[in-house]
Amino acid sequence: MAREFQGPKGTRDFYPRDMALRRHIEAAWRQSSVVHGFEEIDGPTFEHLELYTVKSGEGIVSELFSFRRAGGEDDYALRPEFTPTLARMVAAKAGGLPHPIKWFAIPSHFRAERPQRGRLREFLQWNVDLLGIDGPQAEVEVLSTAIVALERLGLSPADVRVKISHRGVVGAALRSLGVPEERTADAFALLDRRDKLDAASFTARAAEIGLGGTDGEKALEAFARVARARFPAADAAQAVCAATNCSAADAAPLAAVLDGLKASGMDEWCEVDLGIVRGLAYYTGAVFELHEASGGERAIAGGGRYDGLVEMFGGPRTPAVGMGMGDVVLALVLRDRGKLPADDGESLLPRPDAFFISAEGEASDRLLPGMLSSLRRDGLHVRQSYKSTRNVGKLLADAGKCRARMAVILGAEVAEGMVQVKDLDRNEQVMVAVADLARHLRGD
Amino acid sequence: MAREFQGPKGTRDFYPRDMALRRHIEAAWRQSSVVHGFEEIDGPTFEHLELYTVKSGEGIVSELFSFRRAGGEDDYALRPEFTPTLARMVAAKAGGLPHPIKWFAIPSHFRAERPQRGRLREFLQWNVDLLGIDGPQAEVEVLSTAIVALERLGLSPADVRVKISHRGVVGAALRSLGVPEERTADAFALLDRRDKLDAASFTARAAEIGLGGTDGEKALEAFARVARARFPAADAAQAVCAATNCSAADAAPLAAVLDGLKASGMDEWCEVDLGIVRGLAYYTGAVFELHEASGGERAIAGGGRYDGLVEMFGGPRTPAVGMGMGDVVLALVLRDRGKLPADDGESLLPRPDAFFISAEGEASDRLLPGMLSSLRRDGLHVRQSYKSTRNVGKLLADAGKCRARMAVILGAEVAEGMVQVKDLDRNEQVMVAVADLARHLRGD
Repeated sequence: MAREFQGPKGTRDFYPRDMALRRHIEAAWRQSSVVHGFEEIDGPTFEHLELYTVKSGEGIVSELFSFRRAGGEDDYALRPEFTPTLARMVAAKAGGLPHPIKWFAIPSHFRAERPQRGRLREFLQWNVDLLGIDGPQAEVEVLSTAIVALERLGLSPADVRVKISHRGVVGAALRSLGVPEERTADAFALLDRRDKLDAASFTARAAEIGLGGTDGEKALEAFARVARARFPAADAAQAVCAATNCSAADAAPLAAVLDGLKASGMDEWCEVDLGIVRGLAYYTGAVFELHEASGGERAIAGGGRYDGLVEMFGGPRTPAVGMGMGDVVLALVLRDRGKLPADDGESLLPRPDAFFISAEGEASDRLLPGMLSSLRRDGLHVRQSYKSTRNVGKLLADAGKCRARMAVILGAEVAEGMVQVKDLDRNEQVMVAVADLARHLRGD
Repeated sequence: MAREFQGPKGTRDFYPRDMALRRHIEAAWRQSSVVHGFEEIDGPTFEHLELYTVKSGEGIVSELFSFRRAGGEDDYALRPEFTPTLARMVAAKAGGLPHPIKWFAIPSHFRAERPQRGRLREFLQWNVDLLGIDGPQAEVEVLSTAIVALERLGLSPADVRVKISHRGVVGAALRSLGVPEERTADAFALLDRRDKLDAASFTARAAEIGLGGTDGEKALEAFARVARARFPAADAAQAVCAATNCSAADAAPLAAVLDGLKASGMDEWCEVDLGIVRGLAYYTGAVFELHEASGGERAIAGGGRYDGLVEMFGGPRTPAVGMGMGDVVLALVLRDRGKLPADDGESLLPRPDAFFISAEGEASDRLLPGMLSSLRRDGLHVRQSYKSTRNVGKLLADAGKCRARMAVILGAEVAEGMVQVKDLDRNEQVMVAVADLARHLRGD
C-alpha cells in the first residue's frame, strides 16, 4: 500500500527554513511597496483562458497549464502573469478607484515550460503597478520601489544593474538608421534576441529587415552599435543622441525618466541599454530589466509602460507602468552575492522568547500548561520540551538549539510562585515571580 | 476589440480593502501559530492527481480541478486540501526532521463544487499539524492554537463552540448499543449526516444498520440520543459514560483531551458532541469541529488525529493531529458578530507616516523626490499629492483622506532647510529641520 510520492517537476516544497528565506524576500518586497504608498491586492490563481489569449494570442496556450472543470464548459488557465488580472480588476471598477491607482501583489505564477536554472513551473512574482500617471514620475516610483527592496535585501549597484530603454526612442533611432516604419516591430524582435545570436546571424537578420538598403554596411554597423549601446544614467540622454543620430526631442521621454531617477537618488543603480525592448508586445514607452551585474543570470525583474492594456480589457484609456520580479532568479543572485544567511535560513526562523523546563515533577507539570497558555495569549512565543527527562543540563541544550532567548525553569520554588529565568544570550540567571513573568520575558 | 471579462465563478478579486481584511485574518492565524511554536511551510499549488486519489479514492476526482500539461503525460490537480502534501513532505524527510514536527501553512485551496454561502472554488485554509506525539498534548496544542487565533480576532466562547468527539469512544458507545462491529463505519456515516436527515429518515437508516435487532426501539432511541448528545467540557467524560453505557476506560482517551484543555484554560470554549465524526475516513482518534455558536453556518474549522496517514504516503508510522480552518466561513462569522471594522477594511490598510505637500513651487518640487526617497529608504511610509494644485487646505484634506498621521508642508522655509509638520491626529503644527525629519516622523 505504502508508496513514495514526489512533488510535480518544477515545483517546490518549502520546509520551515526554505519558507523563512521566502518570507525574508517577500518582507523586503512588501515593505518597499508599503513605504512607497502601494496597496496590496490579489486575484484568482486561475482565470478564464481567453484573458491570456486576448492579450498574448493563441501562441501562449502551450506555455500555460489549462483545464476545464469536469462537466464544465469554461476553459481556465493557471495564471502565468498578473497583469491581465490587474487590467481586468481595474476595468471592472475603473470609475470607483482612487487616482492614481498604486497596487502591488505577491502571488504564485505558473509556466508549463521546461524547468531550468532560474525558471520553474511555479514561482512567486512581485508585481508593482502605478496607473493613471502619464509622466515619468510613474516609471521613477516603480523603479525606486524595486531598488529599495533590493537595498533591504543587502544588494548594491555593484550587484544589480537597472537597464532602461524606451520603445519610442529606439524606434526613432531605428528610423534614423533607415529601418522602414513597417519593419520596426521586426527590429525590436531582433534587438530582443541580440544575446542569443552570434554576430554573423545578427547581421544577416538585420540586413533582412531593411538595413542592407541605401547605405548598407554603415547602417548595419550603426544598428549593431545601438543594440549593444550602454550608457551610465548620468549623461545618457546626450550620449543616446550622439550614438543614434536621434534629436534631443526624440530622446526627451527617456531623458525625463533618467532625470527623475537622479532627483530621487536612484541613478547610481541605473544605465541606459538600448538593446532592452522586452518581448511582450503591449509595452508602449519606457521598458526596463534588472540584471545581476555580471549578466550571468536571467533577468531579475522586468517591466515598462503599457498605456493600452486596461482599454483592451474593457476599461477606459489608462496610462500605466508596471514591474514584475520573480523569486527564483533573485534568490540565486542573493545566494551568489552572499546576501543570504550561511545557515540555510535557520537564523531567519522566529526566535522563541522562552523555552520552559519542568524540573520538579508533578507540581511543575501541573502548572506548566496554564502558564504557557497565558503567555501565548499575551503574544509571547514560548516552547516546552516534549522529552520525559528532567535533566536540566540536557534540556538547556535543547533550549539553545531552538535559539530561545530565555530558559524558564520550574523547580521547587514554583510552590512559592517563583521560577528561575536564564538569559541564554548573556548567560545570566535570576529568580522571577510567576506574576511578573510576561513582563520579564518581554523585557519591560 | 475591447471586451469585458469577469473572474472565474467561485473565485475572488481582492481589492486593497478586501486584501487588508484577508491579511488581518492571516495575521491572527500566523501569530497564534508562531507563539505556539509552529513553523511555517508551503508546498506546490498543484500535485500529482494520485496524491489525492490514494488517500480519498477515485470518487474525489469530480471535486477537483485536474489537468495535464500540453504534450505531457502526468495528471495533476489543484490542491483541494493540504494534508496529502504535508504527509508527502514528512515521508520524504522523515529521518531528518526534528521531533515533534510542528508545522503550519496558509495556502490557497480549490474545490470544483458549486459555489454557495461559505463555500467557494478558491479559498484560503490555515493548516496546523503536530506530528510525533501519541498523547493528548497534541490535540490540546492544536486546539489551543485555533482558539487563541479566534481570541485575537475578537471572538469569545459565546461566539464559537469547539465541538469534540473521539472515534474510539463513539465506536465503544455504538457497540454497547448493539451496533455490530462491521457496521461501525455505516453508523459513523449516519452520525455525520444527522443534521441533514429528518427524524423518520434517521430512524429508518439506524434500523438498517442493525439497531432494529435484539432490543429494537430502545437501542434506536439511545443511538439518536448519542447522535445529539452535547456536554459541557467540564464534566463531559462522566456524562458520556452515563449517556452511552461506556466504561470509564472506554471514555479515557476523550477524558484525557478534555483534562488537557482544562489545564490550558481552554475548556470554556469546548464541549463534547458525539455526533461529530468528520466525513474523512482517515481519522483514527479524537475529531473536532469549530462552529458558530448558533449553528447557523458551515463548520469554521475541523480536524482530528490521523495516525496512519504518513505511513500511507511511504513514511514511518507517525502519530499526528491536524486542523484546517478556512477563511470564507470565518469571515462570515466575524462579520455577523461585528468583529470586522465597519468601514469594509479601510482602517486595516497601512497608515502613512506622512503626506507631503509641495506648497512653494519649483524650489520645493525640486527637493521633494530626494526627501521622499531618503525617508522611504529609512523605512517610513510617506506619500505625496499627484495633483497640480498648490491649495494647502485641499491638500491637507487629501492627507486626511488617506489617514496619514502627519502632513509635511514644503513652504518658503525649505530654503533654510526647514519644513512645517502638522500632526493630523492632534491638530498641532511645528517647524522641523529637514535633517531631523525622519526622527520626528518616527516619534523618536
